[in-house]
Amino acid sequence: MAKPLILVTNDDGIVAPGIRALVEVARQFGEVVVVAPDSPQSGKGHAITIHDPLRLKHVQVFPGIEAWECSGTPVDCVKLAKHVVLKNRQIDLCVSGINHGSNASINILYSGTLSAAMEASLEGIHSIGFSLLDYSFEANFEPGKPWIKQIIDYALNQRFPAGKLLNVNIPKLPADALRGIRICRQADARWVEEFMEGRDPNNQPYYWLTGKFVNEDSNNDTDVWALENGYISVVPSMHDLTDYSGMEHMRKLEQMDGVSK
Amino acid sequence: MAKPLILVTNDDGIVAPGIRALVEVARQFGEVVVVAPDSPQSGKGHAITIHDPLRLKHVQVFPGIEAWECSGTPVDCVKLAKHVVLKNRQIDLCVSGINHGSNASINILYSGTLSAAMEASLEGIHSIGFSLLDYSFEANFEPGKPWIKQIIDYALNQRFPAGKLLNVNIPKLPADALRGIRICRQADARWVEEFMEGRDPNNQPYYWLTGKFVNEDSNNDTDVWALENGYISVVPSMHDLTDYSGMEHMRKLEQMDGVSK
Repeated sequence: MAKPLILVTNDDGIVAPGIRALVEVARQFGEVVVVAPDSPQSGKGHAITIHDPLRLKHVQVFPGIEAWECSGTPVDCVKLAKHVVLKNRQIDLCVSGINHGSNASINILYSGTLSAAMEASLEGIHSIGFSLLDYSFEANFEPGKPWIKQIIDYALNQRFPAGKLLNVNIPKLPADALRGIRICRQADARWVEEFMEGRDPNNQPYYWLTGKFVNEDSNNDTDVWALENGYISVVPSMHDLTDYSGMEHMRKLEQMDGVSK
Repeated sequence: MAKPLILVTNDDGIVAPGIRALVEVARQFGEVVVVAPDSPQSGKGHAITIHDPLRLKHVQVFPGIEAWECSGTPVDCVKLAKHVVLKNRQIDLCVSGINHGSNASINILYSGTLSAAMEASLEGIHSIGFSLLDYSFEANFEPGKPWIKQIIDYALNQRFPAGKLLNVNIPKLPADALRGIRICRQADARWVEEFMEGRDPNNQPYYWLTGKFVNEDSNNDTDVWALENGYISVVPSMHDLTDYSGMEHMRKLEQMDGVSK
């Protein structure tokens, strides 16, 4: 295999420590090009920018690595990488992260990091979103690095269908406490939301999102279980949201006649 | 059943004609409360607002209907509806739309309309996203209304598991050309993107997203097929993105030892 071309992106922004750690691992495998947001884009999900122009700026952030910062969302970054920065080149792998904080369970829906990887997978590119369960700017990415290296090696060298997406989460543990990798399903957990309510300087009300992640899915085949038990969780994920098991139940709708009663 | 409580939202904004049409149908079934964005939010996907406060304003937009406009994304609207506006009340159904434009196939990922409905489903609320395949402000929502009424009636009165999400798309056709409802899977189509490149008044480059929707999934069980053949498409959808069929293939990763070569 020729030297692979690896696209690196994230949602915490191009100067976040997590993307630096990921570039350090990815560059050991081939040519790395970074296209990442110029500002934090956490929680942007699969948002794209339709009504505004996007900016793309060549920057020196990682020594010896081609890097571009983009004014848009993580998904915008992948689209610009594919269709402008790396136009006419084959991207062998897209890695996104390392996210500062968990993207296990339903967080895949809200996460810009995972949505960027999902967007690459929609383009037929193998892609992996990496997250460390540590929100802090000073998070220690070192214990996870050898594992990330092995997962990237696997993604580059194993033959599996194009456009597969892996959601990888790493527990916040020292190297010798990481117990290995578990292939998991997405836990059926949820956020119990609250809003901090306040008054601004003009005495107008505002609401600020906060919440608590609650997992009542206690089986041992989920990503949340794996992470709570010292394992790195890998969830093979996809963009087909069809609920096949729910189709038969809905067939009754096909008998409707559109004649309002 | 007591008079049901129906939450209505959208992504085109609270003054879009599509949400007015949806309110007109929904109010025939019970109490309607609208919480919708104060500005267009197309393409916002499952984005949430984390780093900024949100505004919520009581407005008179629909005669006799309680309505609130929100400064956030469609998903923010659903969270605020559930946890602030309708706190401690049971929401029986969430309907989102009627979107101006298709949300068939992978557009469910980008769509604020469908992500709002998805968010309600995560909260265990039956939810339906409605879209009409007509982007124009003057779109004619009348032909779809009797069908929407029958689908809402079904969702309110049939017993199926909580938190089910339906993605409903309606072709742009006169009433007598609508052939019925088809229960479908999400077509495996994609966007072929391009960016319009230009220079701003300061001679700086910009990139503006554009693209063409391409469907190479030619089977007759997809939403795109149904719409092209005059049917209203209904895709039962879900928030579990696990690729169960891909799990076995990845088991090799469980043999990794995290010892960097």
